[in-house]
Amino acid sequence: MVSCRRKKKNGDVISLNEVEELVLLETNIDDMNPEYYQYVMQKLFDNGALDVFLTPIIMKKERPAVKFSVLCKLDDISVMKDILFRETTTFGIRILKIQREKLNRSFTEIDTPYGIVRVKNGFLGGELIKSVPEYEDVKKASINSGIPIGTVYNEVMFKAKERNYNG
Amino acid sequence: MVSCRRKKKNGDVISLNEVEELVLLETNIDDMNPEYYQYVMQKLFDNGALDVFLTPIIMKKERPAVKFSVLCKLDDISVMKDILFRETTTFGIRILKIQREKLNRSFTEIDTPYGIVRVKNGFLGGELIKSVPEYEDVKKASINSGIPIGTVYNEVMFKAKERNYNG
Amino acid sequence: MVSCRRKKKNGDVISLNEVEELVLLETNIDDMNPEYYQYVMQKLFDNGALDVFLTPIIMKKERPAVKFSVLCKLDDISVMKDILFRETTTFGIRILKIQREKLNRSFTEIDTPYGIVRVKNGFLGGELIKSVPEYEDVKKASINSGIPIGTVYNEVMFKAKERNYNG
Amino acid sequence: MVSCRRKKKNGDVISLNEVEELVLLETNIDDMNPEYYQYVMQKLFDNGALDVFLTPIIMKKERPAVKFSVLCKLDDISVMKDILFRETTTFGIRILKIQREKLNRSFTEIDTPYGIVRVKNGFLGGELIKSVPEYEDVKKASINSGIPIGTVYNEVMFKAKERNYNG
Amino acid sequence: MVSCRRKKKNGDVISLNEVEELVLLETNIDDMNPEYYQYVMQKLFDNGALDVFLTPIIMKKERPAVKFSVLCKLDDISVMKDILFRETTTFGIRILKIQREKLNRSFTEIDTPYGIVRVKNGFLGGELIKSVPEYEDVKKASINSGIPIGTVYNEVMFKAKERNYNG
Amino acid sequence: MVSCRRKKKNGDVISLNEVEELVLLETNIDDMNPEYYQYVMQKLFDNGALDVFLTPIIMKKERPAVKFSVLCKLDDISVMKDILFRETTTFGIRILKIQREKLNRSFTEIDTPYGIVRVKNGFLGGELIKSVPEYEDVKKASINSGIPIGTVYNEVMFKAKERNYNG
Repeated sequence: MVSCRRKKKNGDVISLNEVEELVLLETNIDDMNPEYYQYVMQKLFDNGALDVFLTPIIMKKERPAVKFSVLCKLDDISVMKDILFRETTTFGIRILKIQREKLNRSFTEIDTPYGIVRVKNGFLGGELIKSVPEYEDVKKASINSGIPIGTVYNEVMFKAKERNYNG
Repeated sequence: MVSCRRKKKNGDVISLNEVEELVLLETNIDDMNPEYYQYVMQKLFDNGALDVFLTPIIMKKERPAVKFSVLCKLDDISVMKDILFRETTTFGIRILKIQREKLNRSFTEIDTPYGIVRVKNGFLGGELIKSVPEYEDVKKASINSGIPIGTVYNEVMFKAKERNYNG
Repeated sequence: MVSCRRKKKNGDVISLNEVEELVLLETNIDDMNPEYYQYVMQKLFDNGALDVFLTPIIMKKERPAVKFSVLCKLDDISVMKDILFRETTTFGIRILKIQREKLNRSFTEIDTPYGIVRVKNGFLGGELIKSVPEYEDVKKASINSGIPIGTVYNEVMFKAKERNYNG
Repeated sequence: MVSCRRKKKNGDVISLNEVEELVLLETNIDDMNPEYYQYVMQKLFDNGALDVFLTPIIMKKERPAVKFSVLCKLDDISVMKDILFRETTTFGIRILKIQREKLNRSFTEIDTPYGIVRVKNGFLGGELIKSVPEYEDVKKASINSGIPIGTVYNEVMFKAKERNYNG
Repeated sequence: MVSCRRKKKNGDVISLNEVEELVLLETNIDDMNPEYYQYVMQKLFDNGALDVFLTPIIMKKERPAVKFSVLCKLDDISVMKDILFRETTTFGIRILKIQREKLNRSFTEIDTPYGIVRVKNGFLGGELIKSVPEYEDVKKASINSGIPIGTVYNEVMFKAKERNYNG
Repeated sequence: MVSCRRKKKNGDVISLNEVEELVLLETNIDDMNPEYYQYVMQKLFDNGALDVFLTPIIMKKERPAVKFSVLCKLDDISVMKDILFRETTTFGIRILKIQREKLNRSFTEIDTPYGIVRVKNGFLGGELIKSVPEYEDVKKASINSGIPIGTVYNEVMFKAKERNYNG
């Protein structure tokens, strides 16, 4: 009923976690129509941003503003800055050099009655420490089946767990 | 170069603003995977919600929680509550009866070099007091043309204003 | 290995959801040491508050303020107002009469290798639609066992689900 | 060194707290330059608003929006709505009828080496339960003296307390 | 009717954007009267802060706290820290060295029927990419004329755009 | 009535403020049950975290997410990362090297009718610039006495101030 196909064998997973040198670009925006954010976020993701997020802040003169943060590779700083300068109202961008440590990852496919749902596995030094269903797959399964999204999500987690124990 | 077609003549606009009896459903959620919100919001909109929005709140035991608010018609309370109870982790929903006063609305289409963009006009007692470009149209025009979204948006506003003065 | 004791039989659960007339007390606080909130929240809960939550807001003069909200029964308005007036800096309290619809509830106890964890079940018109582990029990089991809190939580959910299917 | 003049004698203070019927106007704004808020807030206060505050919210399409709330008297609904419709981008305003209970108030003037600072006293059923320095007076005293604002504020509180005990 | 005076000729604008070494000072504040922020922000700006902003955060023990951020030049670290230590309740300040890239700027004056409004122009490598009206000028023009702030703002943008095309 | 015991003489306080090299660990979390935060925060504090705080953020797909920030010593990076990876849903942690400057500190005990309350004193270059009551002591005194927490807090501040002037 439940078949599982691993894209990677555990044995293939490199045991040391990856540490990358990345850049966090930040700019405070207090004079832009908030409708534009979705468009700009999408453009940044399409051009290689690793993460984009918004933080509500309070600026001078009672302005409910937004700190716009973009995480990217060193090679992508120029294109990210270009998008931020051209597509937002900002006049200045802050650049923070940071490091990021990532879990090693593999993907498993879980067969459910509503379709295949991918699960992302995280490894700390070779040890499997988490398995998280992919939202887009869960959403699609939930739309197709009419079953509540939380129910589908949990069911995928159960099956992933069973597979990890037995597999 | 710029042609404008009004869907409604000013003369057709009813001069009194509409006041509706509506309901605001609210529930505090402190134990749900935040990935689910997008799915639930979409489902509520698809079933007639007039507005759905999230407010970051702080609940007991340091929980960064969310107040989930749904604005709907009286006739839609049951279906909205059903979705909230089934698709979120909540055990209770608050119901506030409110009134809403709306501007009368008409839509104008603005021809731009990047395609037609609709503009929503708002009337206060028959007086045109605002004209706002439709985001989805502006986004499409911006994607098609490669011109920054703010530039397209402003250009549409200029043309809408010119039209209002001349029209 | 896993035994389950229901405090209530499904048959005992009243099939109509409860609708209560409640009160939401709100006050905006912009001149109080934020350390006091925990103390005041606890005092309100100890005296019968059904829920207490804080919303970050922006008030005049760039103040990062807090909307303090208390949900309570009509009979408890006086004691809640007394606590708010005496224990915070507020000079005025807003009173909103609201309705709240609740799911019917029962509790199940799930035996785990780390101790008993209660699960709260929610019923919509007699139908069991959710089962949620009690945080305090999960926390205690996690502290006792050293197993990550998410792992314990998920495991309790699996067992509750199994029990519901078989039970 | 410290002289205190009460504008009102305690005996003049009405012993029952005031309960007023008020209105809370709310509108979600997701397409406006945040610079405008200060201007609109000021205009609302100038025209009789009792309170104006902003709540960061999340609306559809990833918009970091703002819930704009105005507390006013029933007689001022029209002028408030007119300002909101004309000065913001909103197309709809929600109207919530609420009650507000206020502490009775009196003002005391505290002489300090840096000038007179008013203190607002709050009475619950005739009992003095709080005395709060007026921010604008404290700010002026702090600017004039160069003494940190918290130091001035606390000193005014001490003197108000002494006066209450002795006076 | 509309005359424009440029303070700087385009030819004067340096074509490379400026990159500065700056400092971001941060401190989490969970035990201070929020009224003080406006005073402290003003004092920091008066002493050379390039930007000051507040981020709502949640700290231990349910405290709705604030991250206080100050952007300043390396030469101004000492005076900024002195103000933060003396005027707030903080016992520790974090220091982050960052870079900031700025657009080159020029200012244009736009004559409007309600007075002169300055517009800030931003140049990316010599190319004019944005022109933003100065809020204080727009606010003054709006107060003087009674015309909604958004209307004035947009009108200034139109005229700036016309001038850029023709000028 | 009021006796004060200093743990440290002023003369013992080192006159230069301490500057430490520390690390700020940050991770954006958009798929975790918010109930877990309290547990994880406590575990981080128990293992040496200097500060832990949560910032509400908005991530892609309308997710009301949380930036989880941990301030720690360089020696504690490994244990902090291990807890974050094992106890939350995160797949990546950002590492920012920062500096922190702290006020020198001493503690004073203030005798009150409700028990002893400690006060934390802050010294800038040897000068006493602030004295802040310890929240846990104030809370206990308030619970024991039934006196509002703000009243106890202020009273302790007065006595600390008197002691500083006389002592």
